Amino acid sequence: MKLIDGGVCSPKGFKANGVHAGIRKNKTKRDLALIFSEKQASTAAVYTTNLVKGAPLTVTKQNISDGYARAIICNSGNANTCNANGESIAKETCDILAKELNIDSKDVVIASTGVIGQPLDIEPFKSGIPSLVKGLSVNGGSDAAEAIMTTDTIKKEIAVEFTLDGKTCRIGGIAKGSGMIHPNMATMLVFITTDVNITPELLQEALSGDIQNTFNMLSIDGDTSTNDMVVVMANGMAGNKKIDSKNEDYVNFMKALNTVTVNLCKIIAGDGEGATKLLECFVNGANSLETAKKVAKSVICSSLFKAAMFGADANWGRVLCAIGYSGANVDVNKIDVKFKSNKGEIEVCNQGAGVDFSEEKAKEILLEKEINVLIDLNDGEYSSTAWGCDLTYDYVKINGDYRT
Amino acid sequence: MKLIDGGVCSPKGFKANGVHAGIRKNKTKRDLALIFSEKQASTAAVYTTNLVKGAPLTVTKQNISDGYARAIICNSGNANTCNANGESIAKETCDILAKELNIDSKDVVIASTGVIGQPLDIEPFKSGIPSLVKGLSVNGGSDAAEAIMTTDTIKKEIAVEFTLDGKTCRIGGIAKGSGMIHPNMATMLVFITTDVNITPELLQEALSGDIQNTFNMLSIDGDTSTNDMVVVMANGMAGNKKIDSKNEDYVNFMKALNTVTVNLCKIIAGDGEGATKLLECFVNGANSLETAKKVAKSVICSSLFKAAMFGADANWGRVLCAIGYSGANVDVNKIDVKFKSNKGEIEVCNQGAGVDFSEEKAKEILLEKEINVLIDLNDGEYSSTAWGCDLTYDYVKINGDYRT
Repeated sequence: MKLIDGGVCSPKGFKANGVHAGIRKNKTKRDLALIFSEKQASTAAVYTTNLVKGAPLTVTKQNISDGYARAIICNSGNANTCNANGESIAKETCDILAKELNIDSKDVVIASTGVIGQPLDIEPFKSGIPSLVKGLSVNGGSDAAEAIMTTDTIKKEIAVEFTLDGKTCRIGGIAKGSGMIHPNMATMLVFITTDVNITPELLQEALSGDIQNTFNMLSIDGDTSTNDMVVVMANGMAGNKKIDSKNEDYVNFMKALNTVTVNLCKIIAGDGEGATKLLECFVNGANSLETAKKVAKSVICSSLFKAAMFGADANWGRVLCAIGYSGANVDVNKIDVKFKSNKGEIEVCNQGAGVDFSEEKAKEILLEKEINVLIDLNDGEYSSTAWGCDLTYDYVKINGDYRT
Repeated sequence: MKLIDGGVCSPKGFKANGVHAGIRKNKTKRDLALIFSEKQASTAAVYTTNLVKGAPLTVTKQNISDGYARAIICNSGNANTCNANGESIAKETCDILAKELNIDSKDVVIASTGVIGQPLDIEPFKSGIPSLVKGLSVNGGSDAAEAIMTTDTIKKEIAVEFTLDGKTCRIGGIAKGSGMIHPNMATMLVFITTDVNITPELLQEALSGDIQNTFNMLSIDGDTSTNDMVVVMANGMAGNKKIDSKNEDYVNFMKALNTVTVNLCKIIAGDGEGATKLLECFVNGANSLETAKKVAKSVICSSLFKAAMFGADANWGRVLCAIGYSGANVDVNKIDVKFKSNKGEIEVCNQGAGVDFSEEKAKEILLEKEINVLIDLNDGEYSSTAWGCDLTYDYVKINGDYRT
């Protein structure tokens, strides 16, 4: 398996596009994305667990209840959430798109991202969809990635290539997400395409399993969005023997999918709102997987720890503090903590107590852009990783005035 | 019952003092506080639920296991947590103080606040305690309040006067706390004195009940400290008939205690690290107390909502979002939300959907220093209140470089 340049158009049979349809006021900003599969594709999705859900999620859930889809449409600039007529707007959008693509309206996945509770008009969709469809291309993946951005500062694309059953297969993905990220069952908007031949049931199982250790271990700010959704479409055009049992091909597909999702997690965390650093917390030696995950996520979510990382301050007491309130079953007196980056590694806590360390060396390590926090609970065999970012002035700036 | 000027020395028989003993480097900053009761006092305490606990908490728990104490000693500048010799330092401090006061070492409550995992020396205690004791005075409450401050910008004192059994009674309290505030069972350092005559058992019950709706409903940054502790000493010198059952006097004492704790919550929240605003979230119409509390606390803890309040942005979608992921059992389509301050009140969400409102009026309301978020779930009779503050540049600044 190898990483390749590309995104959702890397797998065979997928085209994409992104245009400015007028949902956003800024005319230079694309705001409507489309991903289209030549063939009917097995489709799996996971959604936010927030009780307040975007209207498009409800419509998508209905549309892909048969396990198949052909197209994904997504606007930025408006979340279509807490709107009285949200569902009818979402359905009408699917109808307009289906007509233009000459497909069934039930084969459309729809998503929205942006401000919650702002009225959304159908007009930009009516006027924008024809050119959106007309411009579909195998080179349109980046435009689609751009059209779903909100406060993101970089386009988030990834693709991998691997072999199944002697056939070259690919998985590609795009994501948006910068704030309101603290997934629980699913996260943000992530659209993944693959030409692998796999049943909808196994595709769903692969996705639902994967996100427990990837997107659900990611946090920017502790806020679980109302519009989170991860969708995978598999159109089978790689020509591999259809995966219909948990055989070796399934395991290899899972590995390739995991490479895509872990890389998207890291890209999303590193581009968290206002972030200057990607934080990765590796927990080892836990007495259960649950313990490992609770500890990793608690550390990555601590506002105090995040602010310390912004200041390149090796304030490891905050790591211990976050472990202590995580609710995980740990023996505090066994915990070791190290900080690591391209500049080296330094131990700061051994068996729950501070060790003498060079503040100068620690500063040098923590001034880097990618910081690893290595926690050993010395209490078992389980491990887990969580991803996050530092808390900065710019996070406050962006969110003090996001809407206006 | 009325609020009166004063603090821990307002009730009869309490003296206090605060000095610079040399735990902090800054010589102009008091760092050692003492509260002393002329008579043996019924003493109740609640502690952090963080598994990583400050050494002083362990010592205090042992010391007041009989329900009585005479003195509270507290240093700032060092949390005495995650130190190899923390417990022996805390015990030695109690011994030195007990000898100087001519009381039993087991009658000392000890607390520490400051950086976690920094070695703590006994020397400043040895040299500082004699003058600390010598300076004890009924006017020393404010010096004690000052000596326990860390990143606090104001001293936190409160006192109330009320009548029990025909006798004038008082309760006074001091608190510190500005960051790492997200109590769970107890919060921060709060020392409350009263001259009410009450058994240790009922005093503990009153305190344990009260904090569920006061300190446990307060959050500055979602981080539950390792050193949280609330202590109440009741020395009985008001001369009321000893409260030994849940009679009318007990109920009246509970009310007076609640006035003290709610006011301390508001003072702590308003002085949260970097805060420019006190946020109070009032939830009504919940189908259970648990629902009301979950909703109120989730809103007050949302980084996105807190940043929006800093920017005086009426981004009510973030309130709905926080309610949705709170885990509470709510009907999203019934929720009403209003913002309120000294400048008036404005409805922004009705039955889960946005209403047309004047952005100008909303801005005017949200530019005030004390903001109320009024949430009606329209689903029952239960209500709850939570306290918090906005998320600001200064929170990041303070915590990006707290330790160095």
